[in-house]
Amino acid sequence: MERAVASLRDRAPLVHGITGTATQGLVADGLLAAGARPMLTSTRAEAPTLVPIANALLVNLGSLNNDAREAIKPSVEAAVAHGIPWVLDPTAIGLAPVRTPLARELVALAPTAVRGNASEVLTLALGAGGGHVGRGADSTITPDAAVVAARDISRAHGCVVAVSGAVDLVTDGRQEVRVANGHPLLTQVSGTGCLLGALSAAMVGLDDVAGVVAVVAATALLTVASERAAANAAGPGSFRIRLLDELNAVSSGEVALRARLTCE
Amino acid sequence: MERAVASLRDRAPLVHGITGTATQGLVADGLLAAGARPMLTSTRAEAPTLVPIANALLVNLGSLNNDAREAIKPSVEAAVAHGIPWVLDPTAIGLAPVRTPLARELVALAPTAVRGNASEVLTLALGAGGGHVGRGADSTITPDAAVVAARDISRAHGCVVAVSGAVDLVTDGRQEVRVANGHPLLTQVSGTGCLLGALSAAMVGLDDVAGVVAVVAATALLTVASERAAANAAGPGSFRIRLLDELNAVSSGEVALRARLTCE
Amino acid sequence: MERAVASLRDRAPLVHGITGTATQGLVADGLLAAGARPMLTSTRAEAPTLVPIANALLVNLGSLNNDAREAIKPSVEAAVAHGIPWVLDPTAIGLAPVRTPLARELVALAPTAVRGNASEVLTLALGAGGGHVGRGADSTITPDAAVVAARDISRAHGCVVAVSGAVDLVTDGRQEVRVANGHPLLTQVSGTGCLLGALSAAMVGLDDVAGVVAVVAATALLTVASERAAANAAGPGSFRIRLLDELNAVSSGEVALRARLTCE
Repeated sequence: MERAVASLRDRAPLVHGITGTATQGLVADGLLAAGARPMLTSTRAEAPTLVPIANALLVNLGSLNNDAREAIKPSVEAAVAHGIPWVLDPTAIGLAPVRTPLARELVALAPTAVRGNASEVLTLALGAGGGHVGRGADSTITPDAAVVAARDISRAHGCVVAVSGAVDLVTDGRQEVRVANGHPLLTQVSGTGCLLGALSAAMVGLDDVAGVVAVVAATALLTVASERAAANAAGPGSFRIRLLDELNAVSSGEVALRARLTCE
Repeated sequence: MERAVASLRDRAPLVHGITGTATQGLVADGLLAAGARPMLTSTRAEAPTLVPIANALLVNLGSLNNDAREAIKPSVEAAVAHGIPWVLDPTAIGLAPVRTPLARELVALAPTAVRGNASEVLTLALGAGGGHVGRGADSTITPDAAVVAARDISRAHGCVVAVSGAVDLVTDGRQEVRVANGHPLLTQVSGTGCLLGALSAAMVGLDDVAGVVAVVAATALLTVASERAAANAAGPGSFRIRLLDELNAVSSGEVALRARLTCE
Repeated sequence: MERAVASLRDRAPLVHGITGTATQGLVADGLLAAGARPMLTSTRAEAPTLVPIANALLVNLGSLNNDAREAIKPSVEAAVAHGIPWVLDPTAIGLAPVRTPLARELVALAPTAVRGNASEVLTLALGAGGGHVGRGADSTITPDAAVVAARDISRAHGCVVAVSGAVDLVTDGRQEVRVANGHPLLTQVSGTGCLLGALSAAMVGLDDVAGVVAVVAATALLTVASERAAANAAGPGSFRIRLLDELNAVSSGEVALRARLTCE
């Protein structure tokens, strides 16, 4: 994991992100702070043509607009055709009539990784005829409630699945890694989940880092940075700023040292 | 008013916001900091289906794009049909050929509250055949110049009307409450007016708080927080961050204590 | 140049910006901090009707969406028809199939100024049949490699051309001014290039400041502010905040005093 964070800084992977407008600022600044490079076009005319020059593609359903809705499938197809790793972040699926079936279609295209909260992962696992669970992006269910769903998605589509929460869970369908770092202030800043998806994309874009390790490393980087950021933060405003500072400052060795991982 | 702020933190109302892309970041972070929960989808296909699960709807004409333009009326109709309180923020109406007639159509659908600056409220009161006043979002007219217009809108449509300025004015058509808190740095940060509209939506989404009290409480919360934030701010950048910290930190008792209200 | 910065604060020019959603927050806050006023509508129905009341128009191809794509040409035509100065920021042109020909069409409409990095300026100079150079918004080519291209564009279209980099270059086709201020942290915050385009628009919107001086003054203002901001910044998060504070705090005299200009 130390090597994954070091490799991110060395290689500065280019991440093409199709992501909601509300959180583009944090996603772009967070990728830059961590050492990656963001590119955020999201029209059908341009995004698919630019994906092949990226190291990874992030598809986040966030505040999904009509431009993104049209661009996502051709962009994923471009990623698949060119062997570009890609991450699906099925934000707020459940009731919403466009993103819910879209997420189910996309997961069938075998993303490199899926990242969501427990409610989103449970909803995604229900399959095409399924309903929804919980209250979307604002889940109160813990990741452990979604461990079977995460494993099912992982096995069915050959992808790593990360379930975000107080203790994050990452699975490849065979084993689970839990990351017990983080801070409650992460839930008081808009877009930190989207940023974790973006950092996961940056990590899976490194060709010298394996899938589970990549997503665990992204999770550890963000959550260890969040602990350092929270130490002297006066509230969610200053925490957001310190989080960007710490994503930049924390060394790969310190991420490895502070990460509280358990595998089973 | 102390009870309104306390209730906001207790109940964490879910606010569905259709609002301009330029200020979505501050709106989302400000709602979270204050204790509410944002949801910001804005397409015709999704927004109206999600409004019924929200506690309130915010319609801000901000940097109005075509997705929002199509989504707004069906979303308001969903709010009305399900009895969800909603707030209209007619940003920058006047010359603009889409938002000006749209705002006049929307106000006729009886929002729970309208929030604008004096120029926007004056323009809105002119009615369907009217022209425009001042320079839109960047008004230099004081709220007192719009008191008759605010009262007229309030009586015609049964809504609370808030006029933002150095001294904020809130009316229900019978009485006016003035809130004399605030700081000039609020005008040097993009989206603070939008955030006031969003906080007003969060407050009217509390079923235990009456309309005028809700909007006055939102105004007092933001403006008292702004005074605390400005105390040690080095400029508009750090003020914006401290404003988020203070929206989170200020107690309901302190808002009530520091608020400088006059009623007539 | 001292006079240009002072005039910006005195006159508070209104800048109508059509710019990517990812960086609208920094563009709006940066304009406000520096003393200008932003207006960011970007639909075909509204933007062209509002351009005539602005002091300048900014066209930034950033995360170009379909609304902006349709709005840009009519907005530029409105600017030209009303004699409103305008700035073209051809972000990330090169491979992208919409923005690259669009930028070439737009430069032929004689912008007051063009601002880009070396890769973008080289690509723009290649003309309608040309290819692309480098990697778009994320250029590693130095401005000096684009000096001939910048001069060519300037002479062909009668515009000032600014090439951003460690040492910024500004030319009117006859002489070059180099601005040797700035800080590497500017490259770790998303949208600082867009903000330089926006500040250039604000400056060319002042009718008492000539073209080259306007763009040099915008460059000096941002880069001198960046040096002050970097002095005590803990990383890219706090640097972004201090940059806004310093854009507001730095005096026109200090910008003139600290600016390291060379003319040839």
